[in-house]
Amino acid sequence: MASDEVYRASTYAPVNIAVIKYWGKRDPKLNLPTNSSLSVTLSQDDLRTHTTASCSSSTPHDSLILNGHDQDISGARTQACLHDLRQHRQQLESSDPSLPKLSTMKLKLVSENNFPTAAGLASSAAGFAALVRAIADLYALPLTPTQLSRIARQGSGSACRSLMGGYVAWEKGTAADGSDSVAYEVAPAHHWLEMRALILVASAAKKDVSSTAGMQQTVASSSLFEKRVDEVVPKRMKAMEKAVQERDFEAFARLSMKDSNNFHACCLDTDPPIFYMNDTSRCAVRLCEAINSHHETQSGKAGAICAYTFDAGPNAVVYYLADNEQAVAGLFKGILQGKEGWEGKRGGSVKEKEDRGVLEGMEVAVEGLKKGVSRIILTGVGDGPQKTEEHLC
Amino acid sequence: MASDEVYRASTYAPVNIAVIKYWGKRDPKLNLPTNSSLSVTLSQDDLRTHTTASCSSSTPHDSLILNGHDQDISGARTQACLHDLRQHRQQLESSDPSLPKLSTMKLKLVSENNFPTAAGLASSAAGFAALVRAIADLYALPLTPTQLSRIARQGSGSACRSLMGGYVAWEKGTAADGSDSVAYEVAPAHHWLEMRALILVASAAKKDVSSTAGMQQTVASSSLFEKRVDEVVPKRMKAMEKAVQERDFEAFARLSMKDSNNFHACCLDTDPPIFYMNDTSRCAVRLCEAINSHHETQSGKAGAICAYTFDAGPNAVVYYLADNEQAVAGLFKGILQGKEGWEGKRGGSVKEKEDRGVLEGMEVAVEGLKKGVSRIILTGVGDGPQKTEEHLC
Repeated sequence: MASDEVYRASTYAPVNIAVIKYWGKRDPKLNLPTNSSLSVTLSQDDLRTHTTASCSSSTPHDSLILNGHDQDISGARTQACLHDLRQHRQQLESSDPSLPKLSTMKLKLVSENNFPTAAGLASSAAGFAALVRAIADLYALPLTPTQLSRIARQGSGSACRSLMGGYVAWEKGTAADGSDSVAYEVAPAHHWLEMRALILVASAAKKDVSSTAGMQQTVASSSLFEKRVDEVVPKRMKAMEKAVQERDFEAFARLSMKDSNNFHACCLDTDPPIFYMNDTSRCAVRLCEAINSHHETQSGKAGAICAYTFDAGPNAVVYYLADNEQAVAGLFKGILQGKEGWEGKRGGSVKEKEDRGVLEGMEVAVEGLKKGVSRIILTGVGDGPQKTEEHLC
Repeated sequence: MASDEVYRASTYAPVNIAVIKYWGKRDPKLNLPTNSSLSVTLSQDDLRTHTTASCSSSTPHDSLILNGHDQDISGARTQACLHDLRQHRQQLESSDPSLPKLSTMKLKLVSENNFPTAAGLASSAAGFAALVRAIADLYALPLTPTQLSRIARQGSGSACRSLMGGYVAWEKGTAADGSDSVAYEVAPAHHWLEMRALILVASAAKKDVSSTAGMQQTVASSSLFEKRVDEVVPKRMKAMEKAVQERDFEAFARLSMKDSNNFHACCLDTDPPIFYMNDTSRCAVRLCEAINSHHETQSGKAGAICAYTFDAGPNAVVYYLADNEQAVAGLFKGILQGKEGWEGKRGGSVKEKEDRGVLEGMEVAVEGLKKGVSRIILTGVGDGPQKTEEHLC
């Protein structure tokens, strides 16, 4: 084995969008959250980060190239991940001296997203999940996704939920060292494979406040936040796990919408106030409400068929089941058919639906969406990180 | 005395804008609030309702004409006010038989606002305060403003605060019959006469949800609202009374902004969510923050010089002290000089100020205001209702 042999491992990792939101750290250094959260892992056919981790004795220094641009990896968060992964590798090497000493080599990391960075989608979750997974594979670490989630969490809180597919909870934990603040699979993707997501990407406007800074301002100044953390979220976590287990879309939808609004309410109650939703976001909320109430009128019974949720930005993510694709995505396509994003395989199968019954009295919301949405992304629930032999370096 | 003698009384009544917000009724029929509130009465030179109450034995039926249009007065709220006022008059007539029997005559009420209805300013407060004050004068009722506030409250909750000038609190009370849910003067206008208000009227868009319906949806569905009612507002009421008594603008400003945001956070946490603030509102928030932080940098010490507050609509009301007129109103005039509202006596004395230091990096907010504000109103703290001999009928 030549001393300059290059070791490599590559992975794809998914984006996840929470339906019970993570907002607030009880320990900013360890990225320990004030409350548990729950998310849907989205399909990597549509949204994913592809990362190759490589090392050799001649690699000059640790580096990360994302979408062709050199990134600064000197930050404490990235360093914490690299340190933990190397430590695990070192243990392996100590117990089996025949193993190459990868833990002493510098790492070259190359990463690419298959979605536009400008879309304002939280790519850090997929990014850190891919980084941790790729290095763990390179080091052949015998760790479960939950064990890896503890490491990824230090890079970006929500990254811990991207190490698994399907429906994933991040338990806030109580240990001071964060050892019990990990993600676990509530249900795999195939348990409820019918779940779809339509992302309405709002026209690029600078983000109000970074979520890292914003959430700590909320912790420090919102008079309502304590109530969210102590009472609202614990109850909703249980109810949401049950909704997923029972494939109860009505409960899933109501809880998703309420929790998104509750999170943004706490942002607004922050001093100074944080606004992530804008007029376009509100139009999306109104359209979803109209779709749901039209469906209820038509079917004669209560039951939401779509659910909006908003992360720390104005983009709407609209969840719905495959059976209701025409009633939900079809209606949005009728309004937004000129926009980028409908041209793929998923988008092509959606028929534009112009439903007068739904859109009656919704002129302001319709115009607002036409004006404020720059592109759409159609996707659905998907699996966790996937190993690949396609290497980026 | 001829039997067809016409009895008349006329009054002007002011608008008030709360700095600790009223939102939620514990008894919708009696208009009893879930929390106390505090407002600034605005000058009647700029915003007022003028009402004449008249009656004669030949008046055919109770009627109210507002701005030339016949109004429906059969609603329970108006009827409750008329009933109580007539009962008080009847008591007088019973104890002094020489008094004309006005309580048995029908009432003709004619009302006019000196401000555009389209401005979306809560005119019901001034309207009901004027109605109650004019009839009380017509009936020569020996009632104090606080006693009248109990009657006006039944017409429109916030109307009870328009029966007094200056800084007015509405004590929520605890009695089931509402007898202790009344307004009182925290300080008269002359105590802190330097208070000014700049109202940024947002381009007409239909109001999201009426405040009457909206507040009860919040009571019923918001998981954060209880915290506001039980903890947040009681503390702030005390602090705000103190701020007014001590003429402490910094405290007044911080509490106003926080309470406005807290109220809108509870609206957003309502199911379905209620949005009153829009993108224009948010631009006003950012401008106020920029003015305050620029002032703090310049002066080298903490201290807000302006405070935004938003009622159930997108209009911003910006409070500031006369000494800071150029730094606050002048800056807004520099941005909004083409808009209606600067042409009066108050507006004429404001010099446009283009302060690069404040506006650096604020391009989005400046453009948003230019686009979204349709007119401005300049005013200040003012007195309570004023009797007048100018009759409208």
